[in-house]
Amino acid sequence: MICSPDKLRGAVDAVQAAAALAEGVRAAGATAVEHPLADGGEGSRVTVQAARGGTVVDVATVDAFGRAWTAHIGLLDDGTALVEAAEAVGWGALKDGEKDPLRASSAGLAEPLKAAVRAGARRIVVFVGGTATMDGGTGLLAALGAEIRDSGGELLAGSGADLARVASVDLAPARELLAGVELTMAADVVSPLHGPDGAAHVFGPQKGADPETVELLDDGLRRLEPFLGVGDAQGGGAAGGLGAALLALGAEMVQGSGLIREISRFDDLLADADLCLTAEGKVDASTDAGKTIRAVVDACAAAGVPCVVLGGTVTEDARRLYDRGATAVLSIGPGPRDLDTALRNAAADLAATAYAVCRIHQSAALSSE
Amino acid sequence: MICSPDKLRGAVDAVQAAAALAEGVRAAGATAVEHPLADGGEGSRVTVQAARGGTVVDVATVDAFGRAWTAHIGLLDDGTALVEAAEAVGWGALKDGEKDPLRASSAGLAEPLKAAVRAGARRIVVFVGGTATMDGGTGLLAALGAEIRDSGGELLAGSGADLARVASVDLAPARELLAGVELTMAADVVSPLHGPDGAAHVFGPQKGADPETVELLDDGLRRLEPFLGVGDAQGGGAAGGLGAALLALGAEMVQGSGLIREISRFDDLLADADLCLTAEGKVDASTDAGKTIRAVVDACAAAGVPCVVLGGTVTEDARRLYDRGATAVLSIGPGPRDLDTALRNAAADLAATAYAVCRIHQSAALSSE
Repeated sequence: MICSPDKLRGAVDAVQAAAALAEGVRAAGATAVEHPLADGGEGSRVTVQAARGGTVVDVATVDAFGRAWTAHIGLLDDGTALVEAAEAVGWGALKDGEKDPLRASSAGLAEPLKAAVRAGARRIVVFVGGTATMDGGTGLLAALGAEIRDSGGELLAGSGADLARVASVDLAPARELLAGVELTMAADVVSPLHGPDGAAHVFGPQKGADPETVELLDDGLRRLEPFLGVGDAQGGGAAGGLGAALLALGAEMVQGSGLIREISRFDDLLADADLCLTAEGKVDASTDAGKTIRAVVDACAAAGVPCVVLGGTVTEDARRLYDRGATAVLSIGPGPRDLDTALRNAAADLAATAYAVCRIHQSAALSSE
Repeated sequence: MICSPDKLRGAVDAVQAAAALAEGVRAAGATAVEHPLADGGEGSRVTVQAARGGTVVDVATVDAFGRAWTAHIGLLDDGTALVEAAEAVGWGALKDGEKDPLRASSAGLAEPLKAAVRAGARRIVVFVGGTATMDGGTGLLAALGAEIRDSGGELLAGSGADLARVASVDLAPARELLAGVELTMAADVVSPLHGPDGAAHVFGPQKGADPETVELLDDGLRRLEPFLGVGDAQGGGAAGGLGAALLALGAEMVQGSGLIREISRFDDLLADADLCLTAEGKVDASTDAGKTIRAVVDACAAAGVPCVVLGGTVTEDARRLYDRGATAVLSIGPGPRDLDTALRNAAADLAATAYAVCRIHQSAALSSE
């Protein structure tokens, strides 16, 4: 039995969820393979390494507000380096409620990228998403050596506030630093850099921007756009415009869940599998629209492996997964209760439900022999 | 697939629950047999007839407070008559909140019994439980012809209040009326007629007795006991002491769920079954201790048929059912929510979960071919 869940947000990460499913599977006397998955957002690097192994390298850098911080990168045996933006300039380093999209900078992502280059990576996969920044990636670009200047010719370090002052950008030094490396950007977000669907309007509020600041940031990102030359490319707005900066550096954007399915070698597992269990916190319309679980369902359908989708919550829309080939969609948990209790008990409930599902599967397999 | 649920109290009766399960089974392309079950309490007659058919006879009688009321009995093709005490002297006839255990009488159960005798029944199964009465069955006995007198020789009609006055009981006329009929009393309750575990203390409060009235009724039932001659027999306290009266008339007491399993011919279904789905509102320690679902699990285990238990709520204790041979124990419903919402959606959730379970079962059966 393959145990390939996403995280259950607020309850367990994907690695813990896979362990919980596996506990249930093993209690039923079956063999469990723990292969957690992710959608390219926070936790993606750890999740991929739980499946693929490789080494973890500590990288001294700064957080979104320029304070000393240690990030990590992963090096896989095929020359792929895994860099997660949220591990450098995400919320993990910040105090509760510490939000300042005008001041936050993506500069702290530069050291992990440089470390990957130094380690000889042939390919760098950057998981964007989950950053505290809204600087259009200017902090990263400057820290990689790009020259971003204001109208007076003064170099800018890059931040949300600096966007309004950008008058010229020379990307050459940053591009040179990454020359010869295949750069892949994993994102679920299709937002362009600016505009009504852009980074500031869609993600500004959750990063601490009031309506006035949202307009200020959107104007700044619009001003930046011609210097990056990425137009209204999908994903340019990912991670506060970090996406556009990576695209400007030559990155190919791929959907996070599909990329993780690929680099974690999920499909290889299915050759011998008789059942796959997957799970996430809320199975709903967005699941069908392209998150991790959809990737699992698609892969299982292609491989002819039964796939059971478990959710902390399963909405009516989740039934669409049946049309995609899901074998079953079930919620975990013992019945009516409040959300807090559900979150606290998620691991045990995953195990109990995996156990039940396995036993149904086994009983049918036995009786048809 | 056999669909054999109990009721989900407050949500759907067993017949509706079986239909909901069957809907899910059929949506999965499988064949469903609807065979609702019960524990011997309210709804038992209807439930057995949903499985066994037979005819329904209307019987003019009185409710627990002596007002005209129509009860029903069921006649099966093997000469068994089904009589449900709650259909005569239960809560269904009464206005909301109408409780008076001193005045309530079981007399209204006499007409259904007489109707069964008149119809030529060889066996009468009385489902006790769910009555509004606490009269030790004196109302029934008197209405069947037994002579219950006070110390002045005056005939008593029988009620909770009359118990304190009982000075002699002649059961002969009532016994004669039932001569030649096999009388079976189906009960889940093991309480004796009186004492700390007796009818008044255990069931008095829910039937409207305040602490003082509980003592009064317990004293009355203790006074009655030697005239019935049933001692502290288990089940004597069922239905406010109606159990003791039926035992005094020669009834054999059997556990309700086991009896219904037998007379509904549940086990016959299992010969060809590849899966059995059962369900109840709350699957907990009492389920394992002998309710309907336990009977289903036992029967399936004996027949080697996989059995999946679904519950509106599934407590930790429900896991004991695995030790009894249950294949799986799962809750229905989409995740955290309040009880009212859960009750409103029970039928749809039963169907959705039955669908998911069937598909897991089918996928395993297919892949092992």
